[in-house]
Amino acid sequence: MDHTTGIQKLLSSLRAALEEVGTPSLAALLETLHPQQLLEVWYDLETDERERVLAALDPDDAAELLSKLSWKEQPELLDALSSTQVTKVLEELDPDDLADTLQAMEDWDPERTEEVRALLDPEILAIADSLTEYDEEEAGGLMTPDFVSVRATMTAHQVLGFLREVSPDAETIYYLYVVDETNRLMGVLSLRELIVAHPDTRVSEMMDTHIIAVETDTDQEDVARIIADHDFAVLPVVDPDGRLVGIVTVDDVLDVVTDEATEDIHRMGAAPIDIDYVRANPWLLFRKRASWLILLVVSMTLTFNVIHHYEEVLAEIVILAAFIPLLIGTGGNVGAQVATLVVRALATRELELRDYLMVFWKELRTGILLGVAFGVFMAFYVLIFRAEPLIAIALGITMVLISITANLVGASLPFLFRRFGIDPALTSSPGITTVMDVVGLLIYFRIVIWILGPMLGGGAAGP
Amino acid sequence: MDHTTGIQKLLSSLRAALEEVGTPSLAALLETLHPQQLLEVWYDLETDERERVLAALDPDDAAELLSKLSWKEQPELLDALSSTQVTKVLEELDPDDLADTLQAMEDWDPERTEEVRALLDPEILAIADSLTEYDEEEAGGLMTPDFVSVRATMTAHQVLGFLREVSPDAETIYYLYVVDETNRLMGVLSLRELIVAHPDTRVSEMMDTHIIAVETDTDQEDVARIIADHDFAVLPVVDPDGRLVGIVTVDDVLDVVTDEATEDIHRMGAAPIDIDYVRANPWLLFRKRASWLILLVVSMTLTFNVIHHYEEVLAEIVILAAFIPLLIGTGGNVGAQVATLVVRALATRELELRDYLMVFWKELRTGILLGVAFGVFMAFYVLIFRAEPLIAIALGITMVLISITANLVGASLPFLFRRFGIDPALTSSPGITTVMDVVGLLIYFRIVIWILGPMLGGGAAGP
Repeated sequence: MDHTTGIQKLLSSLRAALEEVGTPSLAALLETLHPQQLLEVWYDLETDERERVLAALDPDDAAELLSKLSWKEQPELLDALSSTQVTKVLEELDPDDLADTLQAMEDWDPERTEEVRALLDPEILAIADSLTEYDEEEAGGLMTPDFVSVRATMTAHQVLGFLREVSPDAETIYYLYVVDETNRLMGVLSLRELIVAHPDTRVSEMMDTHIIAVETDTDQEDVARIIADHDFAVLPVVDPDGRLVGIVTVDDVLDVVTDEATEDIHRMGAAPIDIDYVRANPWLLFRKRASWLILLVVSMTLTFNVIHHYEEVLAEIVILAAFIPLLIGTGGNVGAQVATLVVRALATRELELRDYLMVFWKELRTGILLGVAFGVFMAFYVLIFRAEPLIAIALGITMVLISITANLVGASLPFLFRRFGIDPALTSSPGITTVMDVVGLLIYFRIVIWILGPMLGGGAAGP
Repeated sequence: MDHTTGIQKLLSSLRAALEEVGTPSLAALLETLHPQQLLEVWYDLETDERERVLAALDPDDAAELLSKLSWKEQPELLDALSSTQVTKVLEELDPDDLADTLQAMEDWDPERTEEVRALLDPEILAIADSLTEYDEEEAGGLMTPDFVSVRATMTAHQVLGFLREVSPDAETIYYLYVVDETNRLMGVLSLRELIVAHPDTRVSEMMDTHIIAVETDTDQEDVARIIADHDFAVLPVVDPDGRLVGIVTVDDVLDVVTDEATEDIHRMGAAPIDIDYVRANPWLLFRKRASWLILLVVSMTLTFNVIHHYEEVLAEIVILAAFIPLLIGTGGNVGAQVATLVVRALATRELELRDYLMVFWKELRTGILLGVAFGVFMAFYVLIFRAEPLIAIALGITMVLISITANLVGASLPFLFRRFGIDPALTSSPGITTVMDVVGLLIYFRIVIWILGPMLGGGAAGP
């Protein structure tokens, strides 16, 4: 509540400042704000208000704000600034952010981008350009080239002197990388060790040569896992020849972990939209979501075919239709539950492909427990409402078999997907539900015909 | 594949070393391994093998391994060591980990814990004990008291001298906290600024007084968000009087983000098990999962009641039963999709309560688009299979209404939950599916009676 009030207050003072002619009071207000605070009200502002706020910010704050916005929004916003203004803001960005923003601008308006590139400091531009060759979801796309590298022959005193010079530009000076003359990574040295060392100690005597590094094409999920497992603050990135080309810092990885979790969650809900929800319009949401739904709806027509096939069974004992949603719905829920557990455990590497048999055996037993519990419930429920023992038995058995099958399908599909290089998260709760609707109906009608055969006419007892 | 091969090799060399009498070759092998490598094969080892490995590790590595294991496993394992061995390992733990482990041991075997506590260094014990008063899921439970604090009157030269002394014990020396004589937090100073400063500069001239700190009872999710939003490496924690009591580092937060995502994913799949999947036996999985399933199965019996109520409609036109899974299944899938998007956006604070109307309006329009698309598909599908225009129209209209309703239910329930202080993730895909099964059936039968009334006998047309 307090937080919301603060945001409302900030928003109204911003609006008041925006309404005045000229920008002196706006600039004064912005000076008191942290870019993070601006970000909290950002999407409550109209597009033209955002443009005016950006133009009134000093380049440093504008750069920080910009780096937090999506690549889709950046070029639109920058259109409102003059090319000189854009250049000033871009030069304040970290090289990795600059590379991403230039890419986004290029896609949006190549001519304008050409103009801005010509105005940028050539040295800054060259560093950013060297980063664009890497995939955004790999270590190369995450890293910054602003690391500090030193030589093994330097003394602690020399390194400290060197640090004082380069400190303002480096992303972190707390880990120093020791490289040879070809830039190959030989060791790492922490500033902590450096300041406790005697000034004459050589880097070669202090450095740690057990280095864990990744290559530029290592997937960002693996980068995040290595940093998390080892509690690293920084991870060096090398090219295929072992030459140091950049570092990934733990704060970059924090965003990766959140983004990867969001991606998994969206996939598990069969709703991958790969854009901020707030910025998606209904037409986009429709297209992104319909692609999955169409697949599911078409698969679901199989349920019609199954029931249509056994229509005569239902024609004779109509009440059997009344149990369909309960039976197949429970199958879907059981399957979605276990798929959720398995997909997440595969994603966090708690489970690997080789664990499949262990999971199968565990879920077979869990499925039997669930099946028996719900089967007994189902049989009693039918007895109470219909008092027909044969129907009760048929429904009870169906429930047992559906629960066990659902458990095994939910446990197996994610492994099958992983086996064939598909993200297990694409199993999705809606996907499992759809599979179990079809499978559940097949089980139901086979059991009904088997148990209730004598109660049914000859025509319905066929396959 | 390479990774798996490496693990298999490691496992067989471990097993070979374990089979020899005595532990000299085991100790030699363990010396070459990083605790992280051990962790990768940990659950492939038998319980007694794990105990022997732990006993053969040097206390430092044993502590690192132990800190990565769950609180359930720690006390069991430590049982295999002598109290002196346990004490040595525990003294190598970080204070926050020591506090957690002692708590776990206390729950497992209070007498043994008493004995170990008596052997521990009283100073280390006191620090750990001071941490146990905090909730594990709050800043107090995440923080470590191993920070470095300095006085505003010290010079850069004095601070560097002080750092050389305290460096080995502090979790990080890269951010120094400036406190007054009552330990109240006044500012922060980075080691980076310190080493570029003139040796005579006072801390008061260099420190940054715009400090963002959290209180000990701040929820860990909020701690993670603040660190991620500001790209902090460390966040100070103060007590209600503003006295500095600890720091939370970004690597602790990395685990929090992963754990919170897992918790959300489990809730969204209606499968919260709050224990490592690998360690859960079928009976535990059954109990944890059944609690949600029972609720869902019982709710699902409503579908029986609805169909039972309209049984005569189905008795007259049996084919209507064949469309039930397709209709309600699609409703469940549409609802689960939108709930997934909304729940995740609420969790990442992309959406707040005040955004409800925006979401409702957006999803109403998306629902209409989806509804019309699937309604038209449904009507044609029916026409092709049955060539009865009235049934086609009834089914088409039902599909439109179910899609729109599912979209609005899926968008609204997470907000309703948040409004009443319930975690929106508890909406869950299975939960939405169950709600939409019941709602979908009600819509279906009302529309069927309305459109097909003339085709039905008098008895079935009633409410």
